Amino acid sequence: MDANQFREAAHAAIEEIIQYYDTLPSRQVVSSVSPGYLKPLLPEAPPTTGEAWPAIQADIERVIQPGLTHWQHPNFMAFFPANSSYPGLLGELYSAAFTAPAFNWLCSPAVTELETVVLDWVCGMIGLPDVFLSKGEGGGVIQGSASEAIVTVMVAARERVLNRMTERYEDEKSRDDAKDAMRVKLVSLGSDQAHSSTQKGAIIAGTKFRKITARREDDFGLRSADLRRELERCKSDGLIPYYLTVTLGTTSTCAVDYFEEIAEVIQDYPDLWVHVDAAYAGAALVCPEYQHLTKSFDKFNSFDFNMHKWLLTNFDASCLFIKKRSDLTSALSITPSYLRNSFSDSGLVTDYRDWQIPLGRRFRSLKIWFVLRSYGISGLQAHIRGHIKLGELFHSLMLTRPDLFDVLSKPAFALTVITIKPSTSGEALDRARRLSAASKSDPSHERYLNDFSLDATAHALVDANKLTKEVYELINTRGEIFLTSGVIGGAYAIRVVSATPTAEEKYVRRAFEILVETTKEVLKKGTNRVDGAKEENGGKVVYGA
Amino acid sequence: MDANQFREAAHAAIEEIIQYYDTLPSRQVVSSVSPGYLKPLLPEAPPTTGEAWPAIQADIERVIQPGLTHWQHPNFMAFFPANSSYPGLLGELYSAAFTAPAFNWLCSPAVTELETVVLDWVCGMIGLPDVFLSKGEGGGVIQGSASEAIVTVMVAARERVLNRMTERYEDEKSRDDAKDAMRVKLVSLGSDQAHSSTQKGAIIAGTKFRKITARREDDFGLRSADLRRELERCKSDGLIPYYLTVTLGTTSTCAVDYFEEIAEVIQDYPDLWVHVDAAYAGAALVCPEYQHLTKSFDKFNSFDFNMHKWLLTNFDASCLFIKKRSDLTSALSITPSYLRNSFSDSGLVTDYRDWQIPLGRRFRSLKIWFVLRSYGISGLQAHIRGHIKLGELFHSLMLTRPDLFDVLSKPAFALTVITIKPSTSGEALDRARRLSAASKSDPSHERYLNDFSLDATAHALVDANKLTKEVYELINTRGEIFLTSGVIGGAYAIRVVSATPTAEEKYVRRAFEILVETTKEVLKKGTNRVDGAKEENGGKVVYGA
Repeated sequence: MDANQFREAAHAAIEEIIQYYDTLPSRQVVSSVSPGYLKPLLPEAPPTTGEAWPAIQADIERVIQPGLTHWQHPNFMAFFPANSSYPGLLGELYSAAFTAPAFNWLCSPAVTELETVVLDWVCGMIGLPDVFLSKGEGGGVIQGSASEAIVTVMVAARERVLNRMTERYEDEKSRDDAKDAMRVKLVSLGSDQAHSSTQKGAIIAGTKFRKITARREDDFGLRSADLRRELERCKSDGLIPYYLTVTLGTTSTCAVDYFEEIAEVIQDYPDLWVHVDAAYAGAALVCPEYQHLTKSFDKFNSFDFNMHKWLLTNFDASCLFIKKRSDLTSALSITPSYLRNSFSDSGLVTDYRDWQIPLGRRFRSLKIWFVLRSYGISGLQAHIRGHIKLGELFHSLMLTRPDLFDVLSKPAFALTVITIKPSTSGEALDRARRLSAASKSDPSHERYLNDFSLDATAHALVDANKLTKEVYELINTRGEIFLTSGVIGGAYAIRVVSATPTAEEKYVRRAFEILVETTKEVLKKGTNRVDGAKEENGGKVVYGA
Repeated sequence: MDANQFREAAHAAIEEIIQYYDTLPSRQVVSSVSPGYLKPLLPEAPPTTGEAWPAIQADIERVIQPGLTHWQHPNFMAFFPANSSYPGLLGELYSAAFTAPAFNWLCSPAVTELETVVLDWVCGMIGLPDVFLSKGEGGGVIQGSASEAIVTVMVAARERVLNRMTERYEDEKSRDDAKDAMRVKLVSLGSDQAHSSTQKGAIIAGTKFRKITARREDDFGLRSADLRRELERCKSDGLIPYYLTVTLGTTSTCAVDYFEEIAEVIQDYPDLWVHVDAAYAGAALVCPEYQHLTKSFDKFNSFDFNMHKWLLTNFDASCLFIKKRSDLTSALSITPSYLRNSFSDSGLVTDYRDWQIPLGRRFRSLKIWFVLRSYGISGLQAHIRGHIKLGELFHSLMLTRPDLFDVLSKPAFALTVITIKPSTSGEALDRARRLSAASKSDPSHERYLNDFSLDATAHALVDANKLTKEVYELINTRGEIFLTSGVIGGAYAIRVVSATPTAEEKYVRRAFEILVETTKEVLKKGTNRVDGAKEENGGKVVYGA
């Protein structure tokens, strides 16, 4: 493909992308292909001689489009959003053009230096404490994902505690033996609402992991008393707690841990690394009305949020800030002779490879730079506030139908979490949920339904769970809107978050209608099916209404 | 930025990119900015209100271009290449447009299914054994980098050995205790020529690491006798070897380990996971004349090479193939309720998040698909063979000046590694290098120069090292061509690899001229400086000639 062919191909691609975005609302949000759909559409092997662009491009519509789930679609209300934007696209384009694995400064100084500058910009913009700026001992680095950021800081935390606790040994052999003895006692912590990537990170880092229950009465935020109890339990079990994830905006309900309380507790645990996972909700910090949340972050060691979720920067752009960058580099730095150069040796430059797991890295700061400049801070604030308002609207619509819906937790950061109400009274349901939450830390839905010993109140919860699951599955099968579910404190719940760049009030109102219609339909069917249900379950399951 | 503004901006960006590629040869290959150049060129914070595209785009030339090192430049002969191509760019563009974190199949089925198909294509194209195809128990997955692939398989290997060796324990507590006892005994291995990412991977996985010497007389390839000796040593030290990196094309000299011999040895070590790191040279397997190298790979557990190095796919596209995918998924799979769905539960689909460290992932298979189709297999073969030929040309030019250059190792995969010859006879130098290689496993250059006890032959080596370093640094400082150096078996050496898409014979000839001219200049200066050198070094250092 020469320059002229590229120009022509790129123009055609840009038209197709514009057309894709313009026609998004008319497409079905979730792909409806069956597993294995794609293989039969393609030959068994790549061609021997090259093909011209038009033949390749034609396959985007024929092969790829049917298998896309449209994350920018206004009816995408599942998971958390993954906002894209035109300026972000241009950033990717230039990044690809300037391809470099950029593992050290000299590989392309602009890659390193722009990253430092834009992350300082972001640090200021979201109101993080100055300790996370590059001018002191801290700094920011772009990671591929919040989960990658978590493994990275866990490894740094692990090496920090092992080094600190073995400082007193003078010879290497004794120090290594002491580290081995300690290594297997290391335990990482997170609330049962923290994202699963903490647990996965603990596996990768080869350390233990313990969950701390966050309670519904605390809006699923982790509190100091529970943290302190677990820390003490670890100690009495002979373990060394070395790492804790606290969360600003949990996946299930956008809960916020009690940062100020936690900051108090950890003063007694100087070897505990505290990482703030703000993967989604961190974007809201661009609005001053949320920045009070960062007040105690200077007591913590690291903070990460994904601009690729809610801040118009296409995937990937996870912004990790660290209070003491030497904690990262002393854990992850290895410099063989072929990576040495006078700039790196001088200490005047940053080699971001020592701030991350992989060696090579892309020029990801370009897209962040373009997005920040194209929207400006006020544009980003308007983007966030628009979605918050849509979330409030959705919540208020839910409240108009207390006969059908329960709102499970305080709506937060545009996310509303609901359950479907069976005929049983809400009070009984609440009791059942608390009972369930207390007795099981994180039951999967199926296990829960199978194992739960049915008493009068729990019975109601089982009904609500089955009912909520049925409504949820029917809505997603039909595919007009795309939602996700979760099991939260024993309750099967539906999460609704409308925060794509194309989100609008009319789509939120329509989602509400769909929920109402589908719930009524399922309830009606449930009534019709009471006899069948009775036969299957010994008469214990009634969809009611 | 609306659709019209995007069209206009994208067209302007494309013109700038075309112009960038067209004018590459006239730019200086390595950036000559000083550390910290960029910050003063930008404001202290992002703008409050958004800026229009022309203002942003203008800063590419003003702010970014001066800080770029041009990896597509014909005079880029450093590290290994990071090939970009126009079809690859278009792949990135669509990937950004279809942004999805794609952590499971349903997130966007096309992302998963295209990846499976193109990696099966690649598997066949490079002549890997069928065990790495998705139709059996294996399969391919795109990682961000070869180093990330290494950590990923190390974690899988670690969990595999821990699970296997503790199977006999029935209760979880006993099993966990046994794992703890075993964990600190685990040791990973690689030759002293293996890339440093194995050592870094061992840190991340929290296990020990030992290097095995690869000898110059074996062209720096790892042999079975040395491997077996180290494996036995580990056992007698009470350690459990669980992982080994073997290399197809080492970073320093493109050495190839003795795969068939190694495949024999590991039959006695069924718990040892063997990973083939073919990060750069794996691309050559697209040519049938190299495919004999893969003959014993069915005895190994995983294989990885970077299409983003030498195969025209812009960074990142690291292709990892695994013989038994359940080894990865059983180590890395964690499925909380919010990630469950009927497709994933059915087992009919692949959730690549369980094949990697991060949760989210980009649509990277698009660019591989575009590249394979645009070039065709024959186009990729021509690309590789062209560079191999340039490498042979460069080597033959080196041989015309035995008075100035020594070729350190057999030229391979377009890479030639040379040292500069001082006046001392080549025979003495050879002796000195062997002596040094035997006495030190991997001395850094500075340490080497400081510590090396100078005897008659070693003396010559120190001269050659200082001389080679001076020539190397002078060439890179002047910046017409960009080379890298390394310390290999005690020798400071210059690596020359001309494998960018723009590489041509005239640039290789010019690089040869520059090496000749600079060497002569330094030798001349050395003669003039003999007195100074004598004063500084007690008369021991003479540049000679």
